[in-house]
Amino acid sequence: MKHETDTTVRFCETDAAGHVNNTSYFIYLEEARGRFFQSNLENYQTFGRFIIASTKCDFLSQAYFNQQLIISTWISKIGTKSFQFKHEIKAKDTGVSIAEAEAAIVYFNYEEQKSEPIPEDVRKRLEGQLVTS
Amino acid sequence: MKHETDTTVRFCETDAAGHVNNTSYFIYLEEARGRFFQSNLENYQTFGRFIIASTKCDFLSQAYFNQQLIISTWISKIGTKSFQFKHEIKAKDTGVSIAEAEAAIVYFNYEEQKSEPIPEDVRKRLEGQLVTS
Amino acid sequence: MKHETDTTVRFCETDAAGHVNNTSYFIYLEEARGRFFQSNLENYQTFGRFIIASTKCDFLSQAYFNQQLIISTWISKIGTKSFQFKHEIKAKDTGVSIAEAEAAIVYFNYEEQKSEPIPEDVRKRLEGQLVTS
Amino acid sequence: MKHETDTTVRFCETDAAGHVNNTSYFIYLEEARGRFFQSNLENYQTFGRFIIASTKCDFLSQAYFNQQLIISTWISKIGTKSFQFKHEIKAKDTGVSIAEAEAAIVYFNYEEQKSEPIPEDVRKRLEGQLVTS
Repeated sequence: MKHETDTTVRFCETDAAGHVNNTSYFIYLEEARGRFFQSNLENYQTFGRFIIASTKCDFLSQAYFNQQLIISTWISKIGTKSFQFKHEIKAKDTGVSIAEAEAAIVYFNYEEQKSEPIPEDVRKRLEGQLVTS
Repeated sequence: MKHETDTTVRFCETDAAGHVNNTSYFIYLEEARGRFFQSNLENYQTFGRFIIASTKCDFLSQAYFNQQLIISTWISKIGTKSFQFKHEIKAKDTGVSIAEAEAAIVYFNYEEQKSEPIPEDVRKRLEGQLVTS
Repeated sequence: MKHETDTTVRFCETDAAGHVNNTSYFIYLEEARGRFFQSNLENYQTFGRFIIASTKCDFLSQAYFNQQLIISTWISKIGTKSFQFKHEIKAKDTGVSIAEAEAAIVYFNYEEQKSEPIPEDVRKRLEGQLVTS
Repeated sequence: MKHETDTTVRFCETDAAGHVNNTSYFIYLEEARGRFFQSNLENYQTFGRFIIASTKCDFLSQAYFNQQLIISTWISKIGTKSFQFKHEIKAKDTGVSIAEAEAAIVYFNYEEQKSEPIPEDVRKRLEGQLVTS
């Protein structure tokens, strides 16, 4: 039920401290959510309808250029107008935890610039991906 | 006591949703912390000694290309080996809140790859910037 | 006649080689062109009408975290449907040349997805900024 | 003889014009060169010895979020202290050309901060990848 995607650290994602820059992790997390949406909501054309309201990342170990990372992504909570993603980033070779993260996603009407209840069909799809452990 | 820095949104920091991409806010926050360190710890050569352990950002309003933003940065808490930054991002013209954020910063020995107590002189400097409200 | 803009290198724009990553220079160049447009074409609402067709950058010296850079930008050539920018990036303190660049910009109809002749009024504005030396 | 690598456009690599931002292409090109080095020079530990001296990219068609791109990379010329990469970026599904690029790479002594002749063993490896057409 946890969606997994791979990425390999690009050189421009590192910084002069020699490791992956903190801002780069949010790139990986956004990509992981995009792939989650594609796998689970593709025909719903609803990706453009969601907006990120909050995100948090705990940096547990440093990552480095060319390192392969696995990002696990799942839905941990569903509310009326929003739901929550959780993420885990691990080193592919050793399994060491690199980061843990979460993101609050709101169903958003861009035309009227306000949040709206998640439609029933979308909610059902999301509920099918809920992981509560 | 709150340190302020300005930035203007670059075109490449926006995305196809027409607004500033969520990952770009972490670029602004890192820059704001760097300027805070420069203003308050320059002679301590300690910037390279800190590492970010966690960060969170709440996205309150969207921002757009060419918009001028003010980022306020202050220290909200100091522990033995770490301290916490808080940030507020506002639109320069209207004062509207764009984002609120925080970051946990750890005093880190890169050679031995472990955290260490913040040295007394650095702590004093940080305490001089503490804002508790 | 040469438009100048300043920037200070952000930490996330460096890489694990300890210097500014090559991709970051294109961020500075795009920002410099945006500011050039604002200074010289603001009321023409034509920024959205241009698209970049080609760009080249020669990296002459390395730049580093927190370094202040001056980016000079000028128009070096104007054709029927396009014009050319030239850029020079220098270290603000020493004047050392960091990079030289150019960019070909095409007047573009996004609706029809094709280039178009630059309108007369826009051309006149651009010609007023032409630097041929 | 042409090295191929795939990438899928990330959302944060697009901009408010709705397409891939010009700066993002240089991210793809750097990644492609890194993978080329890994495939062809891995045991030579020489990647850190090269520095980019110049790069140019012609943007032929726009690319969009989630599009799959193939980047072909090959060596087109080898000099005493430097060599030249060429790149072609195509849409994976249609084969449409998205961009053509090149990069001049210099063998660089970071300790002494100056270019040096490419060592004979490295040169031989590079020559084995030379594509002249």
